[in-house]
Amino acid sequence: MNRLPKLDARLEEPLYRQLFQFFRDEILSRRMPPGSRMPPTRELASQIGLNRITISSAYDLLESEGLIRTHVGRGSFVAIPGQLFEEASQSAADSGLDWEERLSAWPPAEQPAGPAGEISISFATARPAEQLFPVEAFRETCREVLNSGEAASILQLGSPHGYPPLRHHLMDQGRLRHLLGEDDDLIVTNGCQQALDLLQRLLVKPGEAVLVEDPIYPGMRNVFARAGVRLLGVPVGSQGVDLDVLARLARSERPSLLVVTPNFQNPTGVTMPEAARRELLRIAAAAALPIVENDIYGELRYVGEAVPTLKELDQAGLVIQVKSFSKLAFPGLRVGWVTGPQPVIRRLAELKQVTDLHTDHLSQAVLLHFDRSGRLEEHRGRILEAGRIRLAAVLAACAQYLPAGAKFTRPEGGMNLWVRLPEPLDATALLPAAQRLGVAYLPAPVFEVSQRQPGGFRLSFAGLAVERIERGLMLLGKVFQTGLEQARASRREDPAPAIV
Amino acid sequence: MNRLPKLDARLEEPLYRQLFQFFRDEILSRRMPPGSRMPPTRELASQIGLNRITISSAYDLLESEGLIRTHVGRGSFVAIPGQLFEEASQSAADSGLDWEERLSAWPPAEQPAGPAGEISISFATARPAEQLFPVEAFRETCREVLNSGEAASILQLGSPHGYPPLRHHLMDQGRLRHLLGEDDDLIVTNGCQQALDLLQRLLVKPGEAVLVEDPIYPGMRNVFARAGVRLLGVPVGSQGVDLDVLARLARSERPSLLVVTPNFQNPTGVTMPEAARRELLRIAAAAALPIVENDIYGELRYVGEAVPTLKELDQAGLVIQVKSFSKLAFPGLRVGWVTGPQPVIRRLAELKQVTDLHTDHLSQAVLLHFDRSGRLEEHRGRILEAGRIRLAAVLAACAQYLPAGAKFTRPEGGMNLWVRLPEPLDATALLPAAQRLGVAYLPAPVFEVSQRQPGGFRLSFAGLAVERIERGLMLLGKVFQTGLEQARASRREDPAPAIV
Repeated sequence: MNRLPKLDARLEEPLYRQLFQFFRDEILSRRMPPGSRMPPTRELASQIGLNRITISSAYDLLESEGLIRTHVGRGSFVAIPGQLFEEASQSAADSGLDWEERLSAWPPAEQPAGPAGEISISFATARPAEQLFPVEAFRETCREVLNSGEAASILQLGSPHGYPPLRHHLMDQGRLRHLLGEDDDLIVTNGCQQALDLLQRLLVKPGEAVLVEDPIYPGMRNVFARAGVRLLGVPVGSQGVDLDVLARLARSERPSLLVVTPNFQNPTGVTMPEAARRELLRIAAAAALPIVENDIYGELRYVGEAVPTLKELDQAGLVIQVKSFSKLAFPGLRVGWVTGPQPVIRRLAELKQVTDLHTDHLSQAVLLHFDRSGRLEEHRGRILEAGRIRLAAVLAACAQYLPAGAKFTRPEGGMNLWVRLPEPLDATALLPAAQRLGVAYLPAPVFEVSQRQPGGFRLSFAGLAVERIERGLMLLGKVFQTGLEQARASRREDPAPAIV
Repeated sequence: MNRLPKLDARLEEPLYRQLFQFFRDEILSRRMPPGSRMPPTRELASQIGLNRITISSAYDLLESEGLIRTHVGRGSFVAIPGQLFEEASQSAADSGLDWEERLSAWPPAEQPAGPAGEISISFATARPAEQLFPVEAFRETCREVLNSGEAASILQLGSPHGYPPLRHHLMDQGRLRHLLGEDDDLIVTNGCQQALDLLQRLLVKPGEAVLVEDPIYPGMRNVFARAGVRLLGVPVGSQGVDLDVLARLARSERPSLLVVTPNFQNPTGVTMPEAARRELLRIAAAAALPIVENDIYGELRYVGEAVPTLKELDQAGLVIQVKSFSKLAFPGLRVGWVTGPQPVIRRLAELKQVTDLHTDHLSQAVLLHFDRSGRLEEHRGRILEAGRIRLAAVLAACAQYLPAGAKFTRPEGGMNLWVRLPEPLDATALLPAAQRLGVAYLPAPVFEVSQRQPGGFRLSFAGLAVERIERGLMLLGKVFQTGLEQARASRREDPAPAIV
């Protein structure tokens, strides 16, 4: 290490994160090359006048991101690509048990690879912008909860259905919005991800078929792939899933479940029109096919008219709806909920109890008060305003900078937009060039079920300010233009095939 | 309803819980008989001058406990035993999909039945006493966390390994206590229950054998039973699991996993001596048998000397240790952790990400500060002092009031003690008589794996004040004495068998 980190305790960003960012920059820029030794925590602590725990926390975060590797007793070192797996095998071989072999039945979950260079404009993550977090309103809400006399019941063990005041509040809202019918019930989960995992465990057995959108985000795909389920993709077009393919697969494959995101689907950003939703429900009813409606983005409509959800339109008791606070407010607080037929929710509650007893009470109470006090709606207003501006910017920039022949979806909300580059461009092959300019996106293979789209990639725009969106697309436009020119040049240079 | 609830807004107990308790008493005492109509929320709200949401929250809690049943549009009614299942089937039959049939592959999780009468002294739940909750220290800690500048990073999405500052803190503590070796790593989970569920999903496939203590608490049994695992019980004696049986089963059944609670086992309260732990490790190493050490009660030693944990004694990298804050501090905040070999923790983190991304940040940050500030240790001092007094009281009361021939364990910590009544007494058959006197306990069948112990039952003493422990055992002593006298009388009256 040649430079000392400059930290500022007055910033909102905690010191351990400032330190983490300093080292991440040093490592990604290769100022600290692979294999080099990190300064010992004790030494660095006295050098820069910080608590050792702060330094250890930063190192821990670096390690969890795969940037450094700590050997107890030897110190921490900048990670060498490919080194992690070898070392873990080594340590297992030293012990009495070959853990790697025991665990070999589980393929590692597929994770998008991290960027190779220093990324200043990342279209890769579908998260709310940290700058828009209502930190002060959150503090205020916590204070109210703590002073409310509810503190004792928050601390006690609770119900697998959820913290009763929050659950009741969500049920009242659901009734008002016709999301919760007479035969329905509701359970609180640790965000949408746990809801999907519990529903998979309850409703699908290994070897059974499940229909999902193609392309689909990896968090959804991993839930089912891990469970040994036959995952069948239904192609997504500008009106949502292809209903002809859906009808055919529903008849021929006898799937146990259909999972759809009718609002602002991830990764395409596409919304299904009402007529398509009604037709989808008819197809599912005819096949007695249960539907999980993932409505995590539903509250994030920036333009156009709201379309009734599948749950509202459902007459046959087919639909289980999953929602969450995390895309709207605070992803670090893990609270979502499932609305569905009573027998499903009762069994989900039994499974939830076995899985982790119940969702954390403190966050449930805080989110309840955040909503009841009107702060959630106020915050949503600001998020929608920012989303509207960013959506307009990304659509304009796509029109301006993407090469002729590129196609892109026109979302009305959510966080993502899908681009298809003209042939012969390959979004995966072009990614390193984009990363060298400091721009990242996730290419189609990350989202593929069975359909190949070499030119496809996702642009997550909601977390980026307008000027970064514009600059990012300008840079991407250059990369793609260069790619097209090289492709043309290589076609011209291709020698005639030898005659043998 | 003939009486109006008397509520007091100045109490720590929130109003909706006071209201819940009022109605629970009315229902359990049959002052409000099964099938009777609950007062409509709007009407009751104006009668007693409360918010409707408060009343709805109380009804919701009553419903989640199975005491009332709400029909949207018709109102709420006191539940009729056996009614729930029929109605759910009915509502499913009305819809397009027979959900009950779809869900029939899953047997309902076994839950101990609730008491039939009004219970004033319950030895049935292993929870910390609500009266001892450090509510003010909790409030103080939350305020510090919110003012610490950490708020923004708490709100952002985090790592499946856990909130880095907490994880690092736990790793430092683990190293100091020789719980975290060079080849080990650590992951934060939603309490011990999720740790066990994730480990089951990672390490055991359906049909494989798992060894557990017999008797064992239902939360543990349900995790494995639900997964279609062959659950084999190893009998627990006064020195913990029977090592001869363990060695035999480890050879003959080739189990995939052994799960043990060496400290203050639930339900028996038994602790394994160090020599037995070493022998257990030898047996497991010879069979290459991985061990999950459930140490949830480890910090609750009231008397005697601490014994090294299996994780500390393990030389062969066999042991995965599970711990939690929930038995010590706040069960409503769901934070526990797993320490084990790096390959195991890496796979757990992948599974955790698929399951629910990560454990809630807010509670992790609060518990970290609660520990770092010294408040956890201070609170633990008070809990240990209360536990010491309660343990002495329960042992003295057992000696005084249990009938001659009864045996009971002598725990040195934890929350539970195991009694075996002399033959021919049957703890399950005697429970209704105890409940009529207002005393509850959980009889042996709740905890059975394969070994029958008709006279066995669990006394959870940690949540009860001394005078209630004494009065409870005095009443139980009467019930058992009456049972013995009736058994003797019926033996005397038995006619000689007819000769045919």
